[in-house]
Amino acid sequence: MATQGQVITCKAAVAWEPNKPLIIEDVQVAPPQAGEVRIQILFTTLCHTDAYTWSGKDPEGLFPCILGHEAAGIVESVGEGVTEVKPGDHVIPCYQAECGECKFCKSGKTNLCGKVRSATGVGVMMSDRQSRFSVNGKPIYHFMGTSTFSQYTVVHDVSVAKIDPIAPLDKVCLLGCGVPTGLGAVWNTAKVEAGSIVAVFGLGTVGLAVAEGAKAAGASRIIGIDIDSNKFERAKNFGVTEFINPKEHENPIQQVIVDLTDGGVDYSFECIGNVSVMRAALECCHKGWGTSVIVGVAASGQEISTRPFQLVTGRVWKGTAFGGFKSRSQVPWLVNKYLNKEIKVDEYITHNLTLADINNAFDLMHEGGCLRCVLAMHARDNM
Amino acid sequence: MATQGQVITCKAAVAWEPNKPLIIEDVQVAPPQAGEVRIQILFTTLCHTDAYTWSGKDPEGLFPCILGHEAAGIVESVGEGVTEVKPGDHVIPCYQAECGECKFCKSGKTNLCGKVRSATGVGVMMSDRQSRFSVNGKPIYHFMGTSTFSQYTVVHDVSVAKIDPIAPLDKVCLLGCGVPTGLGAVWNTAKVEAGSIVAVFGLGTVGLAVAEGAKAAGASRIIGIDIDSNKFERAKNFGVTEFINPKEHENPIQQVIVDLTDGGVDYSFECIGNVSVMRAALECCHKGWGTSVIVGVAASGQEISTRPFQLVTGRVWKGTAFGGFKSRSQVPWLVNKYLNKEIKVDEYITHNLTLADINNAFDLMHEGGCLRCVLAMHARDNM
Ligand SMILES: NC(=O)c1ccc[n+]([C@@H]2O[C@H](COP(=O)([O-])OP(=O)(O)OC[C@H]3O[C@@H](n4cnc5c(N)ncnc54)[C@H](O)[C@@H]3O)[C@@H](O)[C@H]2O)c1
Ligand SMILES: NC(=O)c1ccc[n+]([C@@H]2O[C@H](COP(=O)([O-])OP(=O)(O)OC[C@H]3O[C@@H](n4cnc5c(N)ncnc54)[C@H](O)[C@@H]3O)[C@@H](O)[C@H]2O)c1
Ligand SMILES: [Zn+2]
Ligand SMILES: [Zn+2]
Ligand SMILES: [Zn+2]
Ligand SMILES: [Zn+2]
Repeated sequence: MATQGQVITCKAAVAWEPNKPLIIEDVQVAPPQAGEVRIQILFTTLCHTDAYTWSGKDPEGLFPCILGHEAAGIVESVGEGVTEVKPGDHVIPCYQAECGECKFCKSGKTNLCGKVRSATGVGVMMSDRQSRFSVNGKPIYHFMGTSTFSQYTVVHDVSVAKIDPIAPLDKVCLLGCGVPTGLGAVWNTAKVEAGSIVAVFGLGTVGLAVAEGAKAAGASRIIGIDIDSNKFERAKNFGVTEFINPKEHENPIQQVIVDLTDGGVDYSFECIGNVSVMRAALECCHKGWGTSVIVGVAASGQEISTRPFQLVTGRVWKGTAFGGFKSRSQVPWLVNKYLNKEIKVDEYITHNLTLADINNAFDLMHEGGCLRCVLAMHARDNM
Repeated sequence: MATQGQVITCKAAVAWEPNKPLIIEDVQVAPPQAGEVRIQILFTTLCHTDAYTWSGKDPEGLFPCILGHEAAGIVESVGEGVTEVKPGDHVIPCYQAECGECKFCKSGKTNLCGKVRSATGVGVMMSDRQSRFSVNGKPIYHFMGTSTFSQYTVVHDVSVAKIDPIAPLDKVCLLGCGVPTGLGAVWNTAKVEAGSIVAVFGLGTVGLAVAEGAKAAGASRIIGIDIDSNKFERAKNFGVTEFINPKEHENPIQQVIVDLTDGGVDYSFECIGNVSVMRAALECCHKGWGTSVIVGVAASGQEISTRPFQLVTGRVWKGTAFGGFKSRSQVPWLVNKYLNKEIKVDEYITHNLTLADINNAFDLMHEGGCLRCVLAMHARDNM
C-alpha cells in the first residue's frame, strides 16, 4: 500500500481539554512499530466510558487524547513480527487485549489480559512508551488502547480481532463494547440457567443486551427497571417481560422486587453505574443463591455497600468487564452469531451520523431515545 | 423410657437478661410434640453467636432464653410422626435445618432451609408457636432452634443429625458449628483448588478450620493474618504456612498481601466479624478471579463497602453459613471423616469444664489461648 511505512495525515476528533467540545483536527498517525497494527477505522460508536473520560471526572484521563473504543475497520499496515492480521483484514479493535501468554490469559478464569495494560493505561504504546498520534508535532494520547475517533489508529496486535469480511462494518462495530458486555454478563459471568428470574437495572444498550442474553438463556421472567418509562416499549423486543419504574413506588426498589418474586430474583444486573442501584440489585436477589453482577461503571471514588449478612445468607456479588469475553477469540464468534441472526445488532442502532457530527453524537447519549449512534468515519463531509 | 411423655426437670443455664451472668436453673422441659425431638445434651461448647446474643447487641435476641448451638447428645423421646430418629440415637442438633422439601432444600444451591425459620427466628416451636422450656411456669425462649445449654432440649426433627454411635460425643459436639463452618467455607463455598494461594483472616477455631480445609484442598500457600501473634505457632499445625500481624505493617494489610503474592490471593476468608477486615479480605484478592468469603458475623447494623471497580475487575464477594453444609445429610459424613482421622476435632478443644462453670467458659472466649471449651452437661457438680 502506498501509505505503508509512512505517516498518515487524517481527520480525528481530538479532546484537547476535559468537557470542551471535541475538535476535528488533521492528525499525524505514525506507522505501526513492532507488534503494532494500523487500522483504517470505518465506523465507530460512542459509549459511556468515552463520555466519562471526556467529562474530566476520570482521574486517570489524560489530555489531549483521541477517545473511542467501539468500532470496526480494515488493517492498513502492520509492524514487524505481526502475524495474526495483514493489510486488508476486517477487524474490530479491542480495548480488552488477549495475548494468550500472560498470567491472566493462561489462568482460564478471566478475560482481563495484562500484556499491554501498563501502556494502554497511560495512553502510550508498549514498545517505546510514546504515542503514535500528533498534531503539528504535539503528541496526543491514546485512549483504552483503541482511539477509534480517528480515521486511522494504531493498536497493539494483541488488541485486534479479525472478523469475517462479509460482516457489515457499520453494524458489527457495536460488537466492540456494549452489546458483548451485556450478553457476556449473562452467559459468562452469571451463567444464567433456563427458568431463572432475572432483574435488569437500566434499559440502555447494555441493559437491553443483558435482557437479550437472558432470553436466549431461557430465563422465565426478565424484569426491567428504569426511571424512564419511555424505555419500556422498546425493551419488549429485547426480551423484557415486566417493567418497574422505581419512581412509581414508595418502597425501596429491592423490596418491591422481592415482593413480586416470592423472595427475590435468581440473577440481577446493574447496567447504569449508580452505586445505590448496585446495592438494590444485590439486595433484590434471592437468599441462598441470588447472584448480582455489576456491569455499570460508577464514578471514581464512589463506593458500594451493604450489610454483610446479605452475603452470609448466600447472595453473591460479582462484576464484569467486556462481559467476560476473550476479545480476540470471541469477538469473531459474536460476529458470526450476528451473521447467523442469533444475536441482534441493528436494533441497537438508533442514529447514524458522521465524524464531523461527533459532538452532536455526545449530546444524543443523554437523550432517552438514543441507544447507539454510529459515525461514518470517511463520509464526504469529514474531508 | 420412664421420662417419655413427661415433663423433665433438669439443669439449664438461663440468660435472664442481656449481659448478666447466666444462672443455672431447674428448668421444666415439656415433651416433644408432633415433628419434635427431645434430646439429652451430653456435651456442648460455646461459640460467638451465643456470646453475641448474650451481650444484648443482637436486636433479634429474646430474653429470657437458653443459649447454645454446638453440642451432641442422645435422643430421649420423639413426638408423633418422627421417623428419622428414635430414642437412644446419638445426634448433633443443627441450627441449620434440612427438611429436603422446601424451596431452599430443593434448589440444590444452598444449605439454608426455610421450613422452621419462622419459629426458630423468634424462639418458639412451629406446631404451637410456644416454647417447651419454662421455669416455675414462666416460658423461656429457645435459641437458634437448638438451646444446648440445657441438659434436655427440644428441637424440630428437621434439625437433628443422627451420627455413628461410636463417635465420642465430648469431641464431635464441635461438629455442630465452628469446625464445619471453616471447612465448608473452603470446600463448598469457595471450592478452593489445589495450588491456590489462600489468606485466612483471624486464627480462632473458624479460621484454623479454614486453614485445615485449604490444606486438605491442596493450597500451595496459606497465609494466616491475626493481630495476636501468639496465634501463629499453633496455627502451623492446622496448615498455615505464613503469618502476618497487621499491627507490624504501616501499609494497609490488603496492600501487604498483594505485594507478597504477586498481585493477590486466589481465595480469602474473613473469620473475625470485622467489617473493615472484610473489605481488606476482598481487596487482597487477585484481579480477574480472586474470591473472598465472609465467614465472620459482624454486629448488627454494620456495613461492608468497597469500590465497585474491585468487582468489575473480576473479584467475587460471597459469604457462608455453616460452611454451606447440608446439616442432616452432611454432619454425619463429617463425623465419619473424624472417625477416619481425615479431619481434626480434638485439636480445637483447649478447655473442658462443666455446665456449672458456664460463665467462666464465656470469659475464656476472650482469652487468646482458648479455641473451644467443652462443657460436660451431666457432671456430678451440676446436680
Ligand atoms: N463493565 C463493562 O465492561 C462495561 C462496558 C460498557 C458499558 N459499561 C457501563 O454500563 C453502563 C450502561 O451503559 P449504557 O450504554 O447501556 O447506558 P445508558 O445511559 O444508555 O443506559 C442507562 C439506563 O439507566 C437508566 N437509569 C439511570 N438512572 C437510573 C436509576 N437510578 N434507576 C433505574 N434506571 C436508571 C437510564 O434511564 C438509562 O435507560 C454505563 O455505566 C457504562 O459505562 C460497562
Ligand atoms: N458464618 C457462619 O456460619 C459462622 C459460624 C460460626 C462462627 N462464625 C463467626 O466466625 C467468626 C470467628 O469465630 P471464632 O470462633 O473463630 O472466633 P475467635 O474469636 O476465636 O477468633 C477470631 C480471631 O480473630 C483475631 N482478630 C480479631 N481482630 C482482628 C483483626 N482486626 N485483624 C486480624 N485478626 C483479628 C483474634 O485475635 C482471634 O484470633 C465469628 O465472627 C463467629 O461469629 C460464623
Ligand atoms: Zn464501552
Ligand atoms: Zn494476556
Ligand atoms: Zn456458632
Ligand atoms: Zn428445607
